[in-house]
Parts: sequence; C-alpha cells; structure tokens
Amino acid sequence: MAVYTEVADEELGAFVDRFGIGELLAAKGIAEGVENSNYFIHTTKGFFILTLYEKRVHEEDLPYFLGLMEHLSEKGLVCPRPVRDIKGEALGRLAGRPAAIVTFLDGMSIKRPAASHCRALGEALARLHRGGADFAVTRRNALSVGGWRPLFEAAAPRADSVTKGLSAEIETALSALERGWPTELPVGNIHADLFPDNVFFIGKELSGVIDFYFACTDALAYDLAVCLNAWCFEPDCSFNRTKGQAFLSGYRGLRPLEAAEIEALPLLARGAALRFLLTRLVDWLNVPQGALVRPKDPIEYLRKLRFHGRVASAAEYGLLA
Amino acid sequence: MAVYTEVADEELGAFVDRFGIGELLAAKGIAEGVENSNYFIHTTKGFFILTLYEKRVHEEDLPYFLGLMEHLSEKGLVCPRPVRDIKGEALGRLAGRPAAIVTFLDGMSIKRPAASHCRALGEALARLHRGGADFAVTRRNALSVGGWRPLFEAAAPRADSVTKGLSAEIETALSALERGWPTELPVGNIHADLFPDNVFFIGKELSGVIDFYFACTDALAYDLAVCLNAWCFEPDCSFNRTKGQAFLSGYRGLRPLEAAEIEALPLLARGAALRFLLTRLVDWLNVPQGALVRPKDPIEYLRKLRFHGRVASAAEYGLLA
Repeated sequence: MAVYTEVADEELGAFVDRFGIGELLAAKGIAEGVENSNYFIHTTKGFFILTLYEKRVHEEDLPYFLGLMEHLSEKGLVCPRPVRDIKGEALGRLAGRPAAIVTFLDGMSIKRPAASHCRALGEALARLHRGGADFAVTRRNALSVGGWRPLFEAAAPRADSVTKGLSAEIETALSALERGWPTELPVGNIHADLFPDNVFFIGKELSGVIDFYFACTDALAYDLAVCLNAWCFEPDCSFNRTKGQAFLSGYRGLRPLEAAEIEALPLLARGAALRFLLTRLVDWLNVPQGALVRPKDPIEYLRKLRFHGRVASAAEYGLLA
Repeated sequence: MAVYTEVADEELGAFVDRFGIGELLAAKGIAEGVENSNYFIHTTKGFFILTLYEKRVHEEDLPYFLGLMEHLSEKGLVCPRPVRDIKGEALGRLAGRPAAIVTFLDGMSIKRPAASHCRALGEALARLHRGGADFAVTRRNALSVGGWRPLFEAAAPRADSVTKGLSAEIETALSALERGWPTELPVGNIHADLFPDNVFFIGKELSGVIDFYFACTDALAYDLAVCLNAWCFEPDCSFNRTKGQAFLSGYRGLRPLEAAEIEALPLLARGAALRFLLTRLVDWLNVPQGALVRPKDPIEYLRKLRFHGRVASAAEYGLLA
C-alpha cells in the first residue's frame, strides 16, 4: 500500500483533461494496491480512480486487463469501467508510467465474510465468467501449474527455514499436481485473485469486483478453487462448509458446473492453495531489510493445502448433489 | 505520507454510525499527512475525511484545533468543519487513537503558485485572522522564539555536517532574534503552517484551507511572515516581489496592518525562516535508517534566512505605502 509515483496536481489536471470527464476538482493518493499507484479523483462529472502502473505489471498485458474490465462492465458486472480519452484510448502515460482512469465504485471489503457474502460472491463470479465468455482477447495464466516449479526452485533452498520439512512437502504436492493437472475443463477469462480485498459490499449487497491485474484465460473452475481458499476458511484455517455451500450454490444458480469441473475441484483447490503458498513463500523469503510492510504468512496456505489433500470429493466443500 | 493505523472497514462503519452522517459507502486510506492517518469516506450524506491522530499530535491540543476549525468555518472561512457525534462530541476514539471526522473539501494544492494565488492566499489569511479574533480558547505557540534554542541545541553538534559554518550562523541569527523579538504586536489565532500543500485551489479560486495542527495563539503578522517564506520565493530561492505584493495587498484589503506590524515584518520573516530551518535540520539529522521519505532540505530555509537578513523594510517584500 503506497503511492510509488508522485504526480504534481498540475500534471494530473492536464492528464485528466484529455478524458472528457470534466474539470479536476480534487485528487488524493490512496494507500491501497500493492502493485500500483492509485489516485482517487473528483471531477465536475463524477468520481474516478487514476492508476499509474508500476514495474511489476507488464505493460503489454494492460490492453487485456482494461479491455476485460470494459467488456465485463458492458455485460453488467459491477466493476471499474475504463474511461477512454478523446482519441478513444483507455491507456495513457503520466509521469513516465502507463496510466488509466476507471470509474470509482462505492463499497467496502469485508474482513470476515459471512455465508451471505459468499453466496453473493458466487453469483458475481458466475456473472464474470458468463460475461467474459465472448471477450476475444486472451492472456496465458503465468501463475498456473507451469509457473509453480520455477517459484518453488527460487524458494526451495531456504523453505525449511520457514517450517521444517516444507521443501519436501511442496515437492510432493507439486509433482502430483504436475502429473494430474486437468487440461480439458471449460476455459474462459477468470479473475484469478478474487480475495475479499477485491470485492466490495455495501451492507449485504455486493457492490463491486476490482483489481483485474491477475486476470487471465484459464479453467473457469480454477477461479472457484481460488475463492474456496480465500473466502471459506475460518481464521484458524478450518474449512466452513456452510460458506462453501453458499458460495457454490450462488455460482451454480447462474452457471451450472459440468461433471468434470466438480470432479476436479479438490485438485484445483490444492493447486490454488499451492499457488498462493509459493508466491507468499517467495515474498516471505525476500523481504527487503527495513521493509514497512510485513508479507503475508505462507503457512496459512500450507494448512489449506493439507486440508484439500484430505478432501475426497466436492461434496466436502458443501456442493449439493 | 502514510496510513499509520489500519482500521477494518467494519470498525470504521461502527464509528461513522455515531456521527449521523448516513451509511458508510466507501473508505480509502489516503497517502497524505505526515503526522496522522487519514481516510477519505463517502456516506449516503456526502464526503468526509476521518483522521486518526498519531503520536506526534498532543491529545490535549485537539479540542483547540477542532474548535478553531469549527469556529472559522462558521465565520465563513472555507476549511474542514468537524462533525459532531450524537452526543455533541467532535473528538472520538477509534482503533485506540483519538479520531475526528471533518467535511471533505474539493481543490488541489499548487506546486508553483502564481501572483494571483498569492493574492487569494492573502485574502484567506485575513479572513482566518478576523474570523479567529473572537475564538475564546488559546494555545501557546511551542515553535515560536522560545522553542528555537532547544531545537538548535539538539541539532548544533552535527549541524556543520550539513553545511560548514551552519552552527555559528544559526547561533548569530538566533541570538539576535531572541534579543529583538517583538512582544507588543496584535495577537490572535494563527495557522502558523500555511504552506502551499495546506491551501486548495480550483483553477484560480481558493477553495479551502486545511491542516490546522500547528495553529496557535501568536502575533498575527507572524503568519504573514510564514507565508512570505512559503509562497513568495522562486525555486532558486530568489524572492518574487510581485508575489509578495499580491499576497500583502490581498491581506490588507481585508485587514489593515498596523505600523508596528509593518516595521516588524523583516524580523518576523527571519524568525519564520529560522523556525523551518531548525525543524527541517532536526528531521534531516534524524532520518531513520532505511526511511522511504526523504526529509525536506534545510538549506532552502538557510538561504531564505540570509535573504531576510538583508531586507531593510517591508517595502522590499512588495508592501505598498
């Protein structure tokens, strides 16, 4: 959470002028987003978020992310809608960085989701998958099974410093996933990072889905596996089947699951747990000296990975027959 | 610039509920304010700033700051207006810290003010002084002449590491100011930190004065001296008399200056320059290892101090007879 690139208000004003969204009235750097610099802006025509993309986002991916948000927004998903400038471009440059303006969404993220939030999440995810079905651009998921071994190799030499035996446990899980990873499931555009910080609620109503900067083209059911990991465990890492059931039935009400997707769910859930275990582990082992932000604990995802390893079928997640 | 205290959205919602400003729709930590944590909040009734006061602000001063803002706002100065809760209190507690909600003001701060901005600033400062005249609470200026020697003593042993001869030069200036500091000037409630970051404009119109957390009861003309330092020098530290004239005539159009104030202006300007030289010097010499924020350069204020030392009368600031 930071503003990495400082922009003078005068420069901001000149940039905003090109977008036909009225006169700039206020701009505040917001302490949100680990990867990019975000400004909340108020103009005579409304409220927007201006994002400056920092180094960890690949510039060549931005047309995919912005295009997908625009497409999903047109399809009725409540998500940030990129604003196009007078030349019809959504992507511009500001202070030497790629930059875009999207609509501001009200709502707050929920630290401790209830089952009702999980149901609303499932419905929104199904809308996202259905809306994204006819989006023509694709983006490979760099953090799917093929990307995990390089992460593991970067972390392996010091993994056991985090907890004894971690390296061997990951090796076993990773090898099994590499052998068994499904390739025939329905594919589409997925969010791939739909954690509670990326979903807004006003009261019990879901009011927005944000942060599409891990979105990619991959198995739709993998997105469900990410959400089961991120939303349906309690702080003690025990799985809450009521929440799982609410999430899955919310989803299936709008998009039925195929038999192959249901069968693959425990394996996909192990994969999603390993993906976050690995990226957290790499971050954990590479904290810069004197860093202010403490990285997220990788052990949480080791415990989730172990849980999914014991799951025999999707019924254990609360999936009703 | 940071959010020092992280507050869960649920906690924020409960706090906001007490203020009768509608339902919380959105809250964003904003990367602004060196001393405190600030959240931009949107409710069904409008836009507000929620501030959590961190350790550098003395809790016992908060009723003065909040009371002054409320008083000035009632008198027509455009400044944040504290919101009172259902018990009539402006000051509450959130996440273990004193906290308050004030109205949100549109506008942007100007990095390079023009003469027209300086004139508008002068008018706003006169309004602030006139409006504050009948505010009954007082607060001693801890950073006036009596507070400078302790700062100097903290910095003196290492001052020459910043620039050779700095310690002796400060000692000479400080002794002269201690001997000659005026005590008979008109006194009132002053802002005492009215730098360009604390004044908002929309186009050429001044739209708000913020950050009253150095406000105190002191010579009104000292506030003018702070502004001459902060607004009327060019980046090369040359004084811009056109801007000085615009600022002073804007002020005098609403509050005439007494002869003693005019006469004291060069001395007060030296004092204001020394005050910011000293606080910046202390910050400069005490940067924590690995700090992300580079402190402001104290040398800028050494050069301003030297300029004021050569000024014979307020006419050199652009004051018309």
